[in-house]
Amino acid sequence: MLKQKIAVLGPGSWGSALAQVLAENGHEVTIWGNNPAQIDEINTYHTNRHYLPNIKLPNTIIGEKDLAKAVKDADAVLFVVPTKAMRSVAHEFAKVCENTPYIIHASKGLEQGSHKRISEILYEEIPQAKRKEIVVLSGPSHAEEVAVHDITTITAASVDEQAAKYVQQLFTNEYFRIYTNTDVIGVETGAALKNIIAIGAGAIHGLGFGDDAKAAIMTRGLAEISRLGVAMGANPLTFIGLSGVGDLIVTCTSVHSRNWRAGNLLGQGKQLDEILENMGMIVEGVATTKAAMELAEQLNVEMPITHTIYRVLYEGKDIRQAAKEIMLRDSKVENEFTM
Amino acid sequence: MLKQKIAVLGPGSWGSALAQVLAENGHEVTIWGNNPAQIDEINTYHTNRHYLPNIKLPNTIIGEKDLAKAVKDADAVLFVVPTKAMRSVAHEFAKVCENTPYIIHASKGLEQGSHKRISEILYEEIPQAKRKEIVVLSGPSHAEEVAVHDITTITAASVDEQAAKYVQQLFTNEYFRIYTNTDVIGVETGAALKNIIAIGAGAIHGLGFGDDAKAAIMTRGLAEISRLGVAMGANPLTFIGLSGVGDLIVTCTSVHSRNWRAGNLLGQGKQLDEILENMGMIVEGVATTKAAMELAEQLNVEMPITHTIYRVLYEGKDIRQAAKEIMLRDSKVENEFTM
Repeated sequence: MLKQKIAVLGPGSWGSALAQVLAENGHEVTIWGNNPAQIDEINTYHTNRHYLPNIKLPNTIIGEKDLAKAVKDADAVLFVVPTKAMRSVAHEFAKVCENTPYIIHASKGLEQGSHKRISEILYEEIPQAKRKEIVVLSGPSHAEEVAVHDITTITAASVDEQAAKYVQQLFTNEYFRIYTNTDVIGVETGAALKNIIAIGAGAIHGLGFGDDAKAAIMTRGLAEISRLGVAMGANPLTFIGLSGVGDLIVTCTSVHSRNWRAGNLLGQGKQLDEILENMGMIVEGVATTKAAMELAEQLNVEMPITHTIYRVLYEGKDIRQAAKEIMLRDSKVENEFTM
Repeated sequence: MLKQKIAVLGPGSWGSALAQVLAENGHEVTIWGNNPAQIDEINTYHTNRHYLPNIKLPNTIIGEKDLAKAVKDADAVLFVVPTKAMRSVAHEFAKVCENTPYIIHASKGLEQGSHKRISEILYEEIPQAKRKEIVVLSGPSHAEEVAVHDITTITAASVDEQAAKYVQQLFTNEYFRIYTNTDVIGVETGAALKNIIAIGAGAIHGLGFGDDAKAAIMTRGLAEISRLGVAMGANPLTFIGLSGVGDLIVTCTSVHSRNWRAGNLLGQGKQLDEILENMGMIVEGVATTKAAMELAEQLNVEMPITHTIYRVLYEGKDIRQAAKEIMLRDSKVENEFTM
């Protein structure tokens, strides 16, 4: 593949790790952010210590404070900003963009209030004349592991298979492997909704239950996020892939997951406001649980685990009682989709 | 549900734990085994210390040394004998059975040589006139956790939905929850083939790779066991359920799994014969890897991870080199089944 010019928007840990992959693959990489000190650090010391401690970034990565300069002549623009900043950054990008790059995003979440997926925001804010197709990158990935060349596999999804293949080629190397997929809805909903199940899996651990119960909440949780995803237009088989079960495994079995940790503390009997205050970071699954409940109601989808977690988070329901009640529901069939 | 008479064949840890669930649900339970001392222990002390240390079984469970007496007038017969003993026990059962019980099995594996699934063995050995339908029980379950009333969820699968529902009713209580499924092939193949992936996940850990790589081998491993299962007649969606991903999670994230432990030691550079000798127990995944390779060849199914594990186990391939090569294969699409 010829050398491409890529603009990475968002120098957090994941944006920096992906910029490193691209630079190591020989591409020309600019990384844009709105914290001038951080951009200066990247240009002067080739580090981003707050987000990727102990990592020396490739010297070839250029930090850029000006969005228009960052995206000038880019073949592809990779959005890795937080979900809540996605719409405004996309809007600004559309104003300054002068060519038609591929648009890639590697963020996870649903927009507050509208419950829109990230690619929906991008479609709305970036006119078709200013871009090629949109591609989503998602899968089981800790930035810290990618940064040290540990093996990582993720999905590149786009309605345009050629665009997904282009992104596959951009990133693939001997420690980073990409699988293409055309089910953008499935990939985005899996990524956003898995945080609900991570809270539940943490709670099961905090309550003192064992491996069987952990596997139960992950599997049945996956069944119900698939159910919601399918109602939103996803292919149920996407949830068996890297952005579904793969990401769920990483999130629910790693003590580094904020959502899992919050659930674990809930299970131990701590109160939600106390947990959130002590963590001092956003626990995305809390808002996602509310968004999923609203979507489930709109779309008439049954989500008993999500509903139970909602009642614990927002209505003060006793968590041990909640776990018991969920076992005593009516008996169910397992496999609800038809091929 | 009215009290049923159930014969459990095989007083190992799983057979004993399932017998306990049935007895606690009010059913009349007989457990048959061919070790007289063990049966005496069950009848005299209500313990089965070798298999379930520290557990007191319900007094109502009757140990029985005579197969004909054990199954007399049974409404259902639950086979929980090792795979290699399944055909001979089923054959003996067919000779002594005088009524037509439901047949349930809770064993995992493929027959050596023939690669037949367990329900296939049962269909061959037990004539239709001597039984009602066959039901498979499978899912993420440690006998030790079930025995102490930890939460467990599993699947009851049968081509006859009513038979599956009967088994669901037999077992369901507040710590044991059953989901029905009609895809017997998918449930049985998932259960048998997951041990291959457990060896691989252990090896990834032993090699020093991180969470991303673990999620990668589990997810892509699941993709290829689904692929083989589908070629054998399974529904791909079954692999997203309790007998698929659920069981895979328990097996690949628990250090108690023999298959995981063997893989971990391989990853650390130990030799296979040394590992097997030191463990002093059967590591089922080793034989299953060979069976899967033979089936994959017959059915023309691509299984790169299984093939790599086969080469490490049977051809002395260097394991670190093998892990590297698997990352450098041609780029792939993720979602290969069509709805």
